[in-house]
Order: sequence, then C-alpha cells, then structure tokens
Amino acid sequence: MKTDIEIARASQIMPIMEIGAKLGIAYKYLIPYGHNKAKIDCDFIATLKDKPNGKLILVTAISPTPAGEGKTTTTVGLGDALNSIGKQTAICLREPSLGPCFGSKGGATGGGFAQVVPMEDINLHFTGDFHAIGAAHNLLSALIDNHIKWDNESKLDPQKITWRRVMDMNDRTLRDIVIGLGGTGNGIPRQTGFDITVSSEIMAIFCLATDINDLQRRIGNIIVGYSVDKKSVSARDLMADGAMMVLLKDAFSPNLVQTLEHNPAFIHGGPFANIAHGCNSVVATQTALKVADYVVTEAGFGADLGAEKFFNIKCRKAGLEPDAVVLVATVRALKMHGGVSIDALNAENTIAVKKGLDNLGRHLRNLQQFGVPIVVGINHFITDRETEIRAIIEYCNDLGVEVCVCKHWAEGSKGAQELAHKVVALVESGTAKFSTLYPDNMPLLDKIRHIARTLYGARDIFANDAVRNTLASWEQEYGHFPVCIAKTQYSFSTEPNVLGAPSNHIISIREVRLAAGAEFIVVICGSVMTMPGLPRFPAANYINLNDEGLIEGLF
Amino acid sequence: MKTDIEIARASQIMPIMEIGAKLGIAYKYLIPYGHNKAKIDCDFIATLKDKPNGKLILVTAISPTPAGEGKTTTTVGLGDALNSIGKQTAICLREPSLGPCFGSKGGATGGGFAQVVPMEDINLHFTGDFHAIGAAHNLLSALIDNHIKWDNESKLDPQKITWRRVMDMNDRTLRDIVIGLGGTGNGIPRQTGFDITVSSEIMAIFCLATDINDLQRRIGNIIVGYSVDKKSVSARDLMADGAMMVLLKDAFSPNLVQTLEHNPAFIHGGPFANIAHGCNSVVATQTALKVADYVVTEAGFGADLGAEKFFNIKCRKAGLEPDAVVLVATVRALKMHGGVSIDALNAENTIAVKKGLDNLGRHLRNLQQFGVPIVVGINHFITDRETEIRAIIEYCNDLGVEVCVCKHWAEGSKGAQELAHKVVALVESGTAKFSTLYPDNMPLLDKIRHIARTLYGARDIFANDAVRNTLASWEQEYGHFPVCIAKTQYSFSTEPNVLGAPSNHIISIREVRLAAGAEFIVVICGSVMTMPGLPRFPAANYINLNDEGLIEGLF
Repeated sequence: MKTDIEIARASQIMPIMEIGAKLGIAYKYLIPYGHNKAKIDCDFIATLKDKPNGKLILVTAISPTPAGEGKTTTTVGLGDALNSIGKQTAICLREPSLGPCFGSKGGATGGGFAQVVPMEDINLHFTGDFHAIGAAHNLLSALIDNHIKWDNESKLDPQKITWRRVMDMNDRTLRDIVIGLGGTGNGIPRQTGFDITVSSEIMAIFCLATDINDLQRRIGNIIVGYSVDKKSVSARDLMADGAMMVLLKDAFSPNLVQTLEHNPAFIHGGPFANIAHGCNSVVATQTALKVADYVVTEAGFGADLGAEKFFNIKCRKAGLEPDAVVLVATVRALKMHGGVSIDALNAENTIAVKKGLDNLGRHLRNLQQFGVPIVVGINHFITDRETEIRAIIEYCNDLGVEVCVCKHWAEGSKGAQELAHKVVALVESGTAKFSTLYPDNMPLLDKIRHIARTLYGARDIFANDAVRNTLASWEQEYGHFPVCIAKTQYSFSTEPNVLGAPSNHIISIREVRLAAGAEFIVVICGSVMTMPGLPRFPAANYINLNDEGLIEGLF
Repeated sequence: MKTDIEIARASQIMPIMEIGAKLGIAYKYLIPYGHNKAKIDCDFIATLKDKPNGKLILVTAISPTPAGEGKTTTTVGLGDALNSIGKQTAICLREPSLGPCFGSKGGATGGGFAQVVPMEDINLHFTGDFHAIGAAHNLLSALIDNHIKWDNESKLDPQKITWRRVMDMNDRTLRDIVIGLGGTGNGIPRQTGFDITVSSEIMAIFCLATDINDLQRRIGNIIVGYSVDKKSVSARDLMADGAMMVLLKDAFSPNLVQTLEHNPAFIHGGPFANIAHGCNSVVATQTALKVADYVVTEAGFGADLGAEKFFNIKCRKAGLEPDAVVLVATVRALKMHGGVSIDALNAENTIAVKKGLDNLGRHLRNLQQFGVPIVVGINHFITDRETEIRAIIEYCNDLGVEVCVCKHWAEGSKGAQELAHKVVALVESGTAKFSTLYPDNMPLLDKIRHIARTLYGARDIFANDAVRNTLASWEQEYGHFPVCIAKTQYSFSTEPNVLGAPSNHIISIREVRLAAGAEFIVVICGSVMTMPGLPRFPAANYINLNDEGLIEGLF
C-alpha cells in the first residue's frame, strides 16, 4: 500500500493559476508562491462584496480518540465528491503547525486519496503565514520589555505582563523561563515563557478579523498586561499595532491550493481548538463562499468544542449561516468509546460499537440545537465489519438522522458521492435555521454554565471566588463576548479518560483569560498545554532529504 | 525631495519572469514569490556547471562612520551603470535582517535612484529564508534539550552546551535567560540565551555551502556542545541534520529581484560581518557568475573586515577569483576620520578630509595585497565641496590608484557610468592575480597575528593562556580553517572611537569559538553584540499601514 506522501507525489499537480481560473480569479489577483500555491489579493476580495454567498457545510466529529476519526480527509473527500457530482465546491482548512511535524503528531493535509497538495509545503513553511504571526507576536513582546527598560510611561507592572513570546516549535524548556539576566544592559529580569505560535492570540485574531481594518482594530485592542495602578495596557498604548500590521499584511490574504483531484482548497490560519476557536480564517471562508457554490470546512477537535466554537464564535462574529453539518464517526473510535483498548480495535466487536454510540448520540443532540440539518459520515476503515457499520446506521435511522458510509480515503471522490448527494439534499431542503446557543447579553458565567449543561451533560460548573470576581469585573466592558472553553477534547467531562457520554459531572473552571483582541473569554477547565514537548523519539530524527532531494519521513 | 520608499513606489516594476528571461532562465526554473520576486530552481543551477564564469567585482568601503558610505547604493549604481554601457551585469547582495528594521538601523536595499525593489518585501519577510534558518536553528535547540531530558545517550553536559536559540528580532531581554523552570515536565533548567537569526552559524553555513550536499555535510558538523567526558557533540550525533535540511531546502535556492532600472539582483543570505564573514551566499554568487558577464557584489563593514573575509574565507572556500575591487569613500566619512564631529559635517573642511585620507590609504594598501586591481569610488553627497573631492582624487592619483566621483544616488546608472568604464578597463586589463593573505596551513594564532599586523597596522596580538590552549587544541583537526575576526568595524584597532589609521596597537583576543560547520574559527576581539536591543524610540512605533494599505515609516 502506498503512503500518503507517495500518493501525493504520484499525482499530477495542476498550475495554481488554473485552479484560480476555475473560481474566476484573474491572474493578476493571484499572488503565486511557487507554481502550486497562491495567495488571493485582498483587492479581488473587495470586489466580491455584493455577490451572494454559496452554501456552507461544516465537517465535525465525535469525541476524538487515538483511533482516528478523519475530519480532514472527510472534508477533502466531500469537497471532491461534490465537485464530481456537478456542484462547484471549494474546501476551507486550517494551516498545520510546523512544530508538531517534528514531534509525533505529523502534518494535517488529509490522507490516502483525500489529500491537499503540495503536502510537504503545506506542512512546513507554506506561504510563511505562521512565521509572520510569530514575528508580529514577538515584536510586541520585544516592545513591551523595551518600554519597561526605558521610560515605562504606561507604568506597566513587570509582574503583571500577560503577553508571552511564541515559537512554532515543540520546545518544552521554553514554557517557563527567566529573561533579562546579565545586568542592566539586558533589560529588567522577569519570569515569562514561550507558547507555540498557533496558540498566540494573534492567530485567533487573524482568523476572526473580517477585513484588514478589523484586523488592525483587534491587534490594537490586545491587552499585554496591567499597570501598577491596575489599568490594562494595550498594544495600541505601546504604539505597536502599526508595525505588527505591516508584518501581517501579506499573510492576511487567503492561500489557495488544490486537492489531489484538482479542486480548490483554501488553507488559511490555524488557531488552537482549546484556548482559541480552532477554525480557519473568516476571510478564507468568506472568500470561498463568494467564489464557490458549496464550501466545505472543518472545525477542530470533536463537535462539543470545535462545532460549538464554530457556531458560537466564528459564525456569530462573521455573520455566517451554515446550511448543513457532517458529523464524522468511525467504527474504531466508537469501539474505544465503548470501552475497547487501542490494541483490540481490529477484532470485531459490535457490542462495543453500540455502547460507544452514546457518544455519537450526545453529539447529534447537541448539534440539533443549532438548527442545522445533519448527516453522519461513517469514515470507512478496512478493518470495519458489516455488522458494526449496520449498528451505526440503525442507530441513526432510529433517530431520524441521515447517515452513510464514505470511502474517500481509499477511493477519492467516488467513495464520498453518497455523502455528497445526502449533503446536497439537506442543503436544498432549506431546513437550516441556524441560531447560536446563547445570546450576546447572557452573563459570562451563565454562558459557561449553559454550554456545560446543554452540551457536556454536566450537572453544574464550579468557579472559585477569584474566577467569579474576575468574570464579574469584565462583565460591563466585555460581557457581550462569547466564551471559548479550553478543556480536554477526549471527553465531555474534564477528564480525558472518561469516554462515551458522561453525565452529571461538574465542570471546574481553573482560570479565565481575557482575549480583548480576539474578542472572547478563554475559560480554562483542567490542564491545557500551550507549548508541546518532543517525544523520546521525535519524528525529526527520521526526517531527511533523500538522494533525489525529496523529503522522507514527513507524515 | 522624494524619500527612498516614494522613489521605489513611483517606479514601474517589471514582472520577475522577464528579469529571469534576460538571464536565460526559463519560466519553469523560476519559482515565483509574488509577481516581483522569484527563487531560482537548483535544477537549473546544476545545468550551469560547465559554463565559464563572468567577471567578479567586489564593492567594499573605508572604515564605516555614522556619516554613511553607501556600499549598497554603489553596488546597485555600478550594476545599473555596467548594464547601461552594454555589459550584461547582475548584482549580488545580502538579505536584510527583519529585526533591525524595527529598531533604528532601517533596511538595506540601497537608496535614492540606486535601489533594489520591492523594497518593503525585501526588508520584511522576503521569501522566508531567514524564517527557515531560524526554524532550523531552533529545531536543533529543541532537539538538544529534548535529548538531555530523555536518555542523554551522548552524555551532553547541560553546562557545556554552546548552541543557543535565535530570533529575528532586536530583543535584549533574551540575551541571557534561564530555561526549563517549572518542574521536571519542562526539562532540565539551564542558563542560555537567544541571538539574532543573522548571527546563527546556520546563516554562515548557508552562505558558504557550495551545493545542497555541502550544506548537509556542514549542518551535520555543527558542534552543539561537549559531553561530560569532553567530547564534542554534533548535530549529526543528535540525528538533527536531516530535519534541518528539510526546513532549509527551499530557502537554499537564490532569490532574484530587480533594481529600479530593471536589472537583475540576486539577494540571498545575510550573515553578520563580525562573528561571521558578512557576504551573500556562495550559491547566489556562483549562479550570477554563470548567467551574467559581470557580477557586482558587496561585503559587510569596511575593507579590513568585509573585504578581508570575502577574500580569505568566501573566495578561498568557493574558489572565486575577483577581477576588480571598488573601494567606496565619501567626503563626509573622511572628514570624520579626520576628526570632525557628526554635527559639523556640512561645513567645508578640506584639511579634515586630507587628514582622514590616512584611513583610505591604509585600506588601499591592504587591498593591494590581495592582487586585485582597485578603483576608488567617491560616493557623492550634495554637501560635498569641489576642493574636498579634489583632495581625494589627488591623493589617489599620487598613489597611482584609479578614482572617480559617482552620483548614482541622485542620477541612477548615468551617475555611475564613469566608475563603470573604469571598472571595465581594470577588468579587461587582465591584471588581477588574486591570492589569499595566508595559506591554509599557517597555524591559527599566526593567521590572526598576520592579519593584525598586515591589515590593522597592529604591533602584535595578545592572547591569554586559555585562548592559546584552545587554539592549540584545535590545531590538529581544524588548523586548516581560516580565521573570522570579530572586532569593531569603526576602527583598525579594537577601540570604536579610534578613527583614521592607528598603528602599533595591540589586538587583544577575548575569546575564540569553533564554527565547525561554517569551517572557520571566530576570533572575538573586544565586545561583540549578537542580539541587538531596541532604542528608546524604536522605529516600530512609527511604522504603519496607511489608508491605501501602503507601508509608511519603513526606511
């Protein structure tokens, strides 16, 4: 069997100008990065303002397990399948982070015959967007410490600086550091740290800003810390926003690449799905909706986190109205939710699948609350048994939810045509009546409780006085922000090993953070990692250029 | 009077594919980055192997002063002038560093009517080369700390790790830091720091490697530190070189842009001129020599550092044989060498100019030792007086050295045609008999002494026992390496404020460092800054995007 990189390399890639032409984008508006990647000029995007939107399909998944669900492959496969049945379709994905490619996670460009290409470029530097975001972030960091060293006009308290530094690398030793040692020439010593670039607030802002002016406004609003008299200090206060914008300007244009079947793929921005909202940029989605009849996009993690934030944060802020949702499930993942260990997944176990369907059911009931019609896509693995698949189909039939098997990984578009037809039927039924889960004006703590009870099945939330007081202090100025919950993606609870569909648990809030630029309140429940480490045997040790100059070991 | 950025913007930029066509580079071999920048495919470069080289001209300068000399503008102006008199010419420059653009230094793309464009892109992210170098550097750093955290098979001593981290930012608080705090999950605590990306050994390697295999060999040879049993540990020992190569692969292809007069400019790599050799990449220079009849390039700082390293390190290693040298001087800089303060430069002062000519004279005598014919280019400023210029011309005439005034800043190619004709005459005279200043097999300490006495006018060098012992310990394995002297660029001595042409001083060696990948020995004399800081009023505070989306405040 061929590996993903071998399949990708064996395919004929089309000049990106031809992909752009399919979408009616003239040569002069495509900014090439090599012959197979391009950015779309913001001047072109401005001309689209009055065009009607295409149909928007969200691909989300049951709670992730190490067995794999395949959201990205399903997004790619469905996009190709819609094109193959005559619907002009573009897909929208997040950009992968460079750092984890050298750890154990690998890239994020799909797999099998459902991939976006050029795979190596997209997984590595791509068009430099993350480097630009990292540079803008660290410029602000340098300006903060420089401000303190000189006049410190804003009276910024060195112990109350919340803005850290970033690097697109898995580097655990940078999580907690002391800077400014070595004497007065090296600035003021203080404790701080680095996060991975994708967890930067700038990444979240970049993906929520509706245009370049909105980007500048939000960048200026970033709160970097607090003064000795407890006033917030913003990037604008430090006169940092202009230079940061100059670094971000080019990156803000969405990237265009293609699937293995030469259909257009927008890949732009990639915020974390825990401390941020986990979706590709609004500007990419908006542009795709103007140039394509159908747009298929994905959200990070499972539907409890990814879809919830897609709806409650991204769609709310950008005025998007999704027309259908695909909920991806796999036999293997359902088995794990049914109690099977990862070593035993290959054995037939219909009982475990049925037990695991509780997780699928919870996600279905959750998604129904947003008013968007749903189809379950069973992403097929060769180890799946007929009886196992039938159990899923019957479960969905009983609930009156559309369902089908898809084999895009092995067959490309052909394997996802049934899913495509079902999606078109749902979209054309016109039954979508999208609404967010809570109104802007619900108090912050109530928003958190509402999500916990309605979606996670929790009995209640727990917040200590510090958390309650902090939220209360933000209510007046920032109370209209949505909340962005950071918790484990593996469970409806805050315990990663509680699979299935737990109920009656308590969601304990450890910490809340204000993202004044991204315009949401981060609610941290449990431990959240913002700088990964490398494993004992990092992938980097086995990545090489071979004698033909081709990359080996990247996956 | 128009600013540089206004002149650059008012010019019509030509599609980069047409610039490539001028050099006979087919469309498929040009990898576009936007419509005005491209990388040249290494497959194309491989086809050039048996073509004869064009003529190589080095532009260097007298000892730099805050008054400005204009090496880059002269390189651009001479390149345009050579093209305008019928010689097919390409120029080769270093890429500017991003960090200093936000401090006070500004960019490095020439000025007036002698510029390379697109100026903003080149000064900011350009084609991402420095981001790639930074990522490769920091991947190695992360792998080092990860290696220590797990098995530490190489027995790397945490206190003897010489490899630091880098960022392309002026950030003084990162110079001296403690990492790995916060408990065992965050690795082993140790003291280290960040340098600016351009000072990375990878940058030097990148600019000296003759091809991709040589790059890989050198990257593998990097010494990251020493084991508890005092053995050196290399990047290859840590299995890091393959993944680093994957990050560097695309960056290694040279970048092609254009001058305001639409002539080809290769801009690739940009190592420091103190702890590294300060020249653009060998691969760019080699490629330019194959596709153009004349190639004009520059070296960092004054001729004592820049030209010396260009000859003794770059030309030696790459087998280049320069055909002529342009030594740039200005009336204003010579006045400063003659004792005038920066506030008094606008007043006529021929006596000071004459006094400052000692500096010019020393550089001329130094350059003559390399066997390459010289012309002095007087880079004209509007405040220059006729008598002041005449003093320089007469001085050169007396020494029998070619000299002329050039006005490329105000006039473009027309202003440098006299210089161009003189350069052509020198080249066509065939008098160049290039040789390096010392043979490979001279002992390391003798190499340093030889440079100090022959070029700096020093009486001797001073090295304490530690330095002597270290050099002696390297003699067997690395004794054939050239030395790369890091000292102030402002003086022939190690005191930045001793201008003119000091003699009989002592060059004191503070520290020596082995660059096993770059294949030179860094000799640090005096203090050398490898991570700049931001000034009290950083340029970043005044850089903005204006209402038309154009960058303001970048200079």
